[in-house]
This record gives sequence, structure tokens and C-alpha cells, in this order.
Amino acid sequence: MADRPNVVIVGAGFGGLSAAKSLASSPVEITVIDRRNYHLFQPLLYQVATAALSPADIAWPIRSILSSQKNARVLMGEVSGIDLAARQVLLGKRKIGFDYLILATGAREHYFGHDTWAAHAPGLKTLADATSIRRQILTAFEHAEAEEDASERARLLTFAVIGGGPTGVELAGAIAELAKKALARDFHAIDPTAARVVLIEAGPRLLPAFPATLSDYTERVLRRLGVEIKMDSAVTACTKRGVDLGEDTLSAATVLWGAGVAGSAAGAWAGAATDKAGRIEVGPDLTLPGQPNIFAVGDTAFAKGPDGSPLPGIAPVAKQQGKYVARAIRARVAGKSAPKPFRYKNAGLLATIGRRAAVIDFGFVRLKGWSAWWIWGIAHIFFLIGLRNRVLVMVQWLWNYLTFQRGARLITGTGDD
Amino acid sequence: MADRPNVVIVGAGFGGLSAAKSLASSPVEITVIDRRNYHLFQPLLYQVATAALSPADIAWPIRSILSSQKNARVLMGEVSGIDLAARQVLLGKRKIGFDYLILATGAREHYFGHDTWAAHAPGLKTLADATSIRRQILTAFEHAEAEEDASERARLLTFAVIGGGPTGVELAGAIAELAKKALARDFHAIDPTAARVVLIEAGPRLLPAFPATLSDYTERVLRRLGVEIKMDSAVTACTKRGVDLGEDTLSAATVLWGAGVAGSAAGAWAGAATDKAGRIEVGPDLTLPGQPNIFAVGDTAFAKGPDGSPLPGIAPVAKQQGKYVARAIRARVAGKSAPKPFRYKNAGLLATIGRRAAVIDFGFVRLKGWSAWWIWGIAHIFFLIGLRNRVLVMVQWLWNYLTFQRGARLITGTGDD
Repeated sequence: MADRPNVVIVGAGFGGLSAAKSLASSPVEITVIDRRNYHLFQPLLYQVATAALSPADIAWPIRSILSSQKNARVLMGEVSGIDLAARQVLLGKRKIGFDYLILATGAREHYFGHDTWAAHAPGLKTLADATSIRRQILTAFEHAEAEEDASERARLLTFAVIGGGPTGVELAGAIAELAKKALARDFHAIDPTAARVVLIEAGPRLLPAFPATLSDYTERVLRRLGVEIKMDSAVTACTKRGVDLGEDTLSAATVLWGAGVAGSAAGAWAGAATDKAGRIEVGPDLTLPGQPNIFAVGDTAFAKGPDGSPLPGIAPVAKQQGKYVARAIRARVAGKSAPKPFRYKNAGLLATIGRRAAVIDFGFVRLKGWSAWWIWGIAHIFFLIGLRNRVLVMVQWLWNYLTFQRGARLITGTGDD
Repeated sequence: MADRPNVVIVGAGFGGLSAAKSLASSPVEITVIDRRNYHLFQPLLYQVATAALSPADIAWPIRSILSSQKNARVLMGEVSGIDLAARQVLLGKRKIGFDYLILATGAREHYFGHDTWAAHAPGLKTLADATSIRRQILTAFEHAEAEEDASERARLLTFAVIGGGPTGVELAGAIAELAKKALARDFHAIDPTAARVVLIEAGPRLLPAFPATLSDYTERVLRRLGVEIKMDSAVTACTKRGVDLGEDTLSAATVLWGAGVAGSAAGAWAGAATDKAGRIEVGPDLTLPGQPNIFAVGDTAFAKGPDGSPLPGIAPVAKQQGKYVARAIRARVAGKSAPKPFRYKNAGLLATIGRRAAVIDFGFVRLKGWSAWWIWGIAHIFFLIGLRNRVLVMVQWLWNYLTFQRGARLITGTGDD
């Protein structure tokens, strides 16, 4: 098989896996490289962070996903760079040669130049982030229960979420439900239902990518859940004490960052031009400028829709791009003409707020409330990989729904647990 | 309620929780202290370590278990000592007064004086141990896949388990099934089914607490699973390279310790006499000598059966002792005469070896194979707390059984995952 072209895919997220699977029956040899041994279903990560699901419910071993795909091998390791001239990916001491390279390395938090904020306002991108946020939230209640000073207790029971996009809305709603329902009866010295959950948005409305009617609805539902919303509030600092909003300081022991994401280091590896957020500016065929054999997909790429606006950083975009790149490589290998420029087929925007409340914008139709929540739930179950995880997530959602409890309320990762 | 006696329980394992629940309708005020926020179902911990179950499947928030019990409160924190004269438990800066104290702090690994071995041969007592062992096992296969030196690859694919008791047998069997079934098809450079699993026992037979026929059966089944068994092999050192057995060295990247447990620090707090393993030598009423208001239960206590032999360190002993202590305290509070000395009602000894193979010794009847495996499974589902966890464990066992896969194959806790 030495004469079959080598396709190297860096990153086994939605984009990378979709490309790998789409090349299953193509005459290429695929190497999938990831620093982790699992594919993560990021849309449900906030449910791990808020104790509703376990990490293994939303993660699958990459090897296991690709085990029956004969032309794919998996390497676990951290890519440190690319040798463009030699066409090699640098993986520790190893060098992995490629004929085609797909960069699908995802995104990380973007603190708009304030990287010191990261220590006080963690974001939610990885399983480690999720279990660490879960620990932080649950520990805040435990510390509050033991605290005798009233103002410190209030600080411990204040949870600030920065960013009114889907991540911020989902986190704020889920923390409010955790405090006001699941934990309500479990403490003696404190009243968890009195916890403050504050959602901070720099702009004039929540979910700015959605139509205004859905933003209004989201705001109403969150307020009904007891979430305080601070609109038009620009964060000027995240510190050990809490969040500074210009003159004001919100005293909060837990501050979570859902305000911005940036591309990964892939742009620097490839010496490619990136936008402010570090995403690689790809051409209409998703290749890097001047590098016709190197593609970028998903959050790694800065791609535009037909109207010139940037595509959202969501799973359907990454998946469609992965498929498109596979098609492009297949055409190239077969000596056929390249496919037409990539065009995103709108799969809708979804965000869940809480129990029986979600919003969906399909473009041609907009849904909110109970119906949107059902569609959101069914879609997410459908897109999970494998029967096992579908059943596990359904069982836990049913239990959460019926009992108002959260089943994964474990404080782990303290080093001695 | 200030005139009701205070019962402080340190540790919310099987013994501590059983005491707390048995005192639910008694005129006492209960404080349950644990360093963790969850009760752990330790008998299934090896299944977390071998990627079959998730941590939250076998752990429940202590607060949630006791939330409807009006006379109980829960404090999360690390006890540092006991002030016997003042009758106070020292919890950080706080002092928790008690009229009755129940020490139920469990056990930790016992390296027979070789504490440096701990770094190379971790034991399995906590959720952190389990996820760390899971990481170590799965990472060994990943490193082997990337390793080019044959002898180092062999070392990476060698898993040594020290101790032929139930923990060692269960771990060895589960690792063998993981390597030879779940991972079998998932690698390209290595053959996971060629991994060596070596079970090392210092004595002449496995499961020494069981009848010899069941030991023989266990040995046969493990060998059939491909486990190598080294009997009469005393470990002389655990190092970075592997295990020294006198003159011989077994080169193994993963060495797990299932050879001995010791009591916790509770004996030192109370200034009580302990056996070699650090367990407190309690009287027939489970009180500490000279401390009629302080009890020790479960693995914290060294108690003897009617024939003078020490009671095994298993959940039924701890639970029965917890109930007994509750009864003793109730009698004391009511001014009634003390109950008869504690007597363990034999609940049997169970150990599982692998798929469709387990051993049970009820004393009057001994079971092995398929029937024992079913009873083992049903008993463990039954003793899990709550419908949610029962359903989740059943779903996963069914899936594991039908597919031979393991669903929680996540390498987590590396700091960047």
C-alpha cells in the first residue's frame, strides 16, 4: 500500500472524524492524530460540568470508532509543528509524512488579550475543564456550608457566567437548576436556592446569533429560573474576588468563561495567516493559501458563508467541511476535477436553556419552549455515537427530569479523592 | 434540640452510613463527616479501573443520601485529630463536639513497611486510584503502539497484579478481558491480545480465605483467560522497571497492589492500640478500650469472630457493625441495658473472576461458575443505592456482555485533557 497517498488528520473532533470516515473506501492511507484517546461530544459538555452526565457518556475511544476502518490508523500524541518542505507532521520524536493534511484541531478559549483571566474564569472546552468546573461549583456550596462570615458565604454562593452565547446560556440555566432544585434540600447552614447566578453579556441581547424574538424568550426563561442578567456589561477584569465590570465589582467565587473561542496553534504550525481569533483564513476550497494539499476545517478555519458572514463554530459546519475535504481529496487522488467551493448547508442553531425550554433557529422556521426542547434532546441523542451512550444519556435525562436530581455530583480531582 | 446527645460519625462508607441511617428515628443529633462528598461502592471500583463503569455509577452524594433524614447533617472536611478530654473532633479550624463518636474511616493500602513501593505499585481504594489506574493501563497500550524497541514494548504490555485475594483476582481477570477482547482489534503496530497479565501471590493458593476447591477453580479460569499466575512468590521490591521476586525480576510498566490493607489514621487520633495493620483493637461491643463512647467499625476496627479469627474487611461486616453501634447508642441514650456483644452474621464471601465466572462461599453452600456469577451480579445491583445507578450499571453490564467492549475507555487526568 506504499503507493497510496497518505492523508494525515490532526484532531478527532467532529471535523476530523467526519473526514476520516468519509475516506473509508478511498484508496488512501489515513493517520488520525489526537492528543487524547477519545472523541468528545462537546455540545453536552456543560451537562458534565453541571453534574448531569458522566464524562464517558459523551466520549468514545477514537480507536474503537475507527477499528473497523481498514485504511485508518490512530496515533495518540501531541503535534508540535509541521515541516512544510518535507511534508511531515512533527509528533514528539516521530515525523509523520503526508500527501494531504487536514487540520482539525478545534478551538480554545479566547480572553481577548487578557490571558491572566484564564486562571480565575475557566472556559469549557475539554473533559478536564468540565470535571474541574463541576468540582468548583460543588465545592463552593460545601465551603459556603462551613463558612461563618456572611459576606464570604454570599461570595461563595455567587456564580458568574461571562458571555451570553449558547455556552453561557446553557451553563447559567443548568447552574440555576442545580442550585434551586437538585441541591435545594441537602444543606443545613445555607439555602442553596438563594445562590445567585449572574449571566454577563457585553452586548444588548442574549444569543446574538439568533433572531431577537428567541433572545427575548431566552432572557425571560432565564429570569424565571432566577438567573440575574447583566446586559451591555463589559468585563474589565477577572480576579480572585470575582468580576470587574467597569466601576462595579461582582463578588463571586466561581466565574466561568463562555465569551469567546480562538483557533488552536495550527495556524502557527502552518505559518498561515489567521484572523484575530487565531483561525486560519482558508480559501473557498478550505485549503490554506499557497498550500493546496493542506486543509483546515471546523473551529480551526475561518470560513465565510455565501453572504460573507463567518460560519458559526458548531458541529454541523465541522462535519460538512470534513466531508467536503474528503471529497476534494478523493477527486484529486482520482485525477478528477475539484468539487465546487464549500457551501454550508444550514443545519440550524440550537441552544437549550433549561427544563422544557430551548430555542431553535432553522432559518425558515423558529421554535421555542417545549417543542424546541424535545427536538434539541432527540437531535442530541441521535448524534451521540453508539447505542450504549444513547441509552445511558436517555436514562439519565429521564431520571434528571423526573427527580430534579443530578446524578454525577462528585467532587473529584482534588488529588486525594 | 440542644439537649439531644451528639453522635459524630467520621467516614460515610458502608459502616458509617449504616450507623447514620440506623439512628434516623433516634433522639440524637448526627453529624456525618467525610473528606469526600460522596459515598463510594468500593466492590465495583475495579470496574472503574478497567474502563467498564464510570465513577458516578458507583458513587452517590452523601448529602443526597441523607437529605430526608432530619436528625443528620453532613460536613465535608478532613479530620486531623480528636480531643479526647474535650470530646471534640478536630476538623480544620472547627471543633465538633460529640457525646458518641463512631470511627468509620476505612482502610488504605498496606505495603508491609515498604512505603516507597506505593509510587510504583498503586492500590485501589479511591475513585482517584481507579481513574489513575485506568489511565495507566490504557496509556501503556498507547505507548506500546508508538514504541519501536521490542523489549520496551514487551515491558509496556506486561501488567503485574500483586496479591491473590479478591481484589487481585478481579483486577487480573478484568485486565485480561480488556486486553484480549475489548482492545483486540484497535491497534495496528501491536497485538493487545499478546499482553501479559501476571498475578503474583506470596502464598500457595489464590483466594486464601475461600475453600481450596474454589481457589483451584479460580486458578483454572484465570489461566484460561490467559493470566499467568506466580504462586509462592514473595515480592522483594517494586521499582520503576517492574517487580522483583527474589532473584527474578518481572519487567512490567504497570504494577498494581492488591496485597494488603491497613487501618486509617483513626487509631492514632484516638491514641488507641492497633494491630500491625493499624486497625484499632476494639472490645466485643466495638468500643475502644477505656473509651466507652467511642466506637470503631469496618476496616477501621480489628474485630474477631466467635472462633477467634479476624473478621474479613468486607461491606457486610461494616454494615452490621454500623447497625450494632447504632443499637448500642440507642440503648445507652434510653438508659437501657447494652446489647449483647457484636456477632457477625455470615453474609458469604464473593469474588468475580471474569465473564460468567465467579466464586461464592456462603459457608453452608459453595458456588462457582455461571450461577455464582449471576448471584454476584444481582447482589451487587441490589446493593447499589438508587434506581438510577442500578439501571446505569445494568445497561453497561449488558452492553459489555454483548459486545465484549468497555465503554469508559478514557485517558483522563493528565492535566491537559
